[in-house]
Amino acid sequence: MIRIVRPCAATAAATPPTPPRSLDLPPLIARGLERVGARVAQQLTSDVPEVHALCRSLDKYRGKMLRPTLSLLCAHAVRRDSLEIVDEALIVPDVVTVASVVEMIHLATLVHDDVLDEAETRRGHATINRIEGNEIAVILGDFLISQSFHLCSSLDTQKTALRVGEITSAVCAGELLQLARRGDAALDEPTYFRIIERKTAALIGLACEVGARHAGADEATCAAMYRFGSHLGIAFQIQDDLLDLIGDEAVVGKPLGKDIEKGKVTLPVLHHMGRLATAEREAIEARIRTSTPLNGSRSMLAARLDASGSIEYARKVAREHIERALSELGRLGESPARERLAAVGESVIDRQF
Amino acid sequence: MIRIVRPCAATAAATPPTPPRSLDLPPLIARGLERVGARVAQQLTSDVPEVHALCRSLDKYRGKMLRPTLSLLCAHAVRRDSLEIVDEALIVPDVVTVASVVEMIHLATLVHDDVLDEAETRRGHATINRIEGNEIAVILGDFLISQSFHLCSSLDTQKTALRVGEITSAVCAGELLQLARRGDAALDEPTYFRIIERKTAALIGLACEVGARHAGADEATCAAMYRFGSHLGIAFQIQDDLLDLIGDEAVVGKPLGKDIEKGKVTLPVLHHMGRLATAEREAIEARIRTSTPLNGSRSMLAARLDASGSIEYARKVAREHIERALSELGRLGESPARERLAAVGESVIDRQF
Repeated sequence: MIRIVRPCAATAAATPPTPPRSLDLPPLIARGLERVGARVAQQLTSDVPEVHALCRSLDKYRGKMLRPTLSLLCAHAVRRDSLEIVDEALIVPDVVTVASVVEMIHLATLVHDDVLDEAETRRGHATINRIEGNEIAVILGDFLISQSFHLCSSLDTQKTALRVGEITSAVCAGELLQLARRGDAALDEPTYFRIIERKTAALIGLACEVGARHAGADEATCAAMYRFGSHLGIAFQIQDDLLDLIGDEAVVGKPLGKDIEKGKVTLPVLHHMGRLATAEREAIEARIRTSTPLNGSRSMLAARLDASGSIEYARKVAREHIERALSELGRLGESPARERLAAVGESVIDRQF
Repeated sequence: MIRIVRPCAATAAATPPTPPRSLDLPPLIARGLERVGARVAQQLTSDVPEVHALCRSLDKYRGKMLRPTLSLLCAHAVRRDSLEIVDEALIVPDVVTVASVVEMIHLATLVHDDVLDEAETRRGHATINRIEGNEIAVILGDFLISQSFHLCSSLDTQKTALRVGEITSAVCAGELLQLARRGDAALDEPTYFRIIERKTAALIGLACEVGARHAGADEATCAAMYRFGSHLGIAFQIQDDLLDLIGDEAVVGKPLGKDIEKGKVTLPVLHHMGRLATAEREAIEARIRTSTPLNGSRSMLAARLDASGSIEYARKVAREHIERALSELGRLGESPARERLAAVGESVIDRQF
């Protein structure tokens, strides 16, 4: 009854490596991200050759590195550094470490999410579960979590390790809540936000908070940076939900229209259902309950959501969270990094992938 | 193609709670284990009701608590405490914490192993994956890992957190190596030991080491306790492999004969194959490669392994590791706990479940 897919060597061989898509970043941040990438690669090694090879297969999962970018920007915003000159002395080693920890936890969630979602491609490449099978993908995700905590324990302070444990648990709790409520067409907005605050926003908040903390920020500033990241994360998730409905598969790099098929009720759909006559609402509810694939009807559903103002509504809510995120930046003095943080906020809701 | 099972409410309702089976333990250790149980339960909570309910469903996974028992015994052996009187002051709070951390990591491996093995029962109860589905079981395992690291970060010293991260990664590496080599009928003894040293022995070694460390042992004693636990763990795994071939399902509490079906080559089978004529060996190799269920032929295979001396060989190797474990106890002064550690060693290879 429970099927777990076997390795598919042909797909593996057909997957060429490509560089990650990146934001247009100032030189100091680009250099910081290189150091994060090197630290992650250094941590993802093993004395067992078979495991080491699996670690290397994770390299293609690396994407825009949004979370480490935010850690670095928050750190430089606290210190009000110039970002235009690559001065290695300006990059705090502990900031590189915590940014790497957060990125590895993010990678672990991607690997396990792909198992849960039965995803076959991510960022245009075959997923680990597709190439190596579900069993290896589950344990490789565990290895990632474990190695990230190991790296975190190398820091001088335990405060960060405690926060990382707390937030990682919150991420799992958000995922569990979403799974427990999948197929529940009666999901309400407060529950939707309870889910995305935990599963998506908490880790982005953490990335900002720990970046600030290891650059010497006081606790009030760290808390403001957490709120900045958390609001940004909520907007990020709403944009993700929108892309699943109205995005271009070729640009996003993965199959879309999957949320309804997986029984996930997202903000635009939730808003739309509240505006429908009973018969029409029941048709969508049945689709959610029975996990019916959208297939060709994605564009039809998108048109209806557009007509009912639900796309616009979701965009408005995302915009409000970006505004709330930006208002937290007021705690920081003016700096090039603060300006960049604001720009990242804007880009989150403008992005098409 | 990839199937993930959906919740099975009927099975869930049919599962009554039963108390864990326990070793015959002195009063101070029994009290220590109660405190470990309470600490684990305290750590496995959530402000999300759905997640909290899932945490409670983990209670039935608790078994003999071998690892916390070893942590407590190692701690009391270092301090040469009497074990007969329940004096709370003799129980070091940090030892309870580290014993809880190790138990939670063990629980996480059980939850994920059951997903990988498609197991439907454990300790006579329906597994989490059977009741709640694979998706929830994967993320609940992640939550367990995360909460164990969180608890570990509450200790004053970071040395333990580093070791916990290191060993948890080794456990994953062992599992990954086993998965990468499944169906490989040409597996050799060194690789078999590389797998079980990591996937089973390392965590048992850690349980002993951290128990000793937080009771004030010097590093040489901690290292000896790690070796004690590691050899004991190797013997434990060999006994597990033997039970899969010759155990009684009703006593062990789970379906047996699964290793060959899962393409896992274990020590007795490995030894047996080395003693066969080509045709006979090829028949077993084909069964391993193609993951053919043993079904009714488990007793026939067991009889052949017995005739070729392979059961006896595996028992002899397990016995040798117990002897090596016991020799490490010489580093400790005489104490009731040291005697108990020796008795646990013996019980590991005598056990029928």
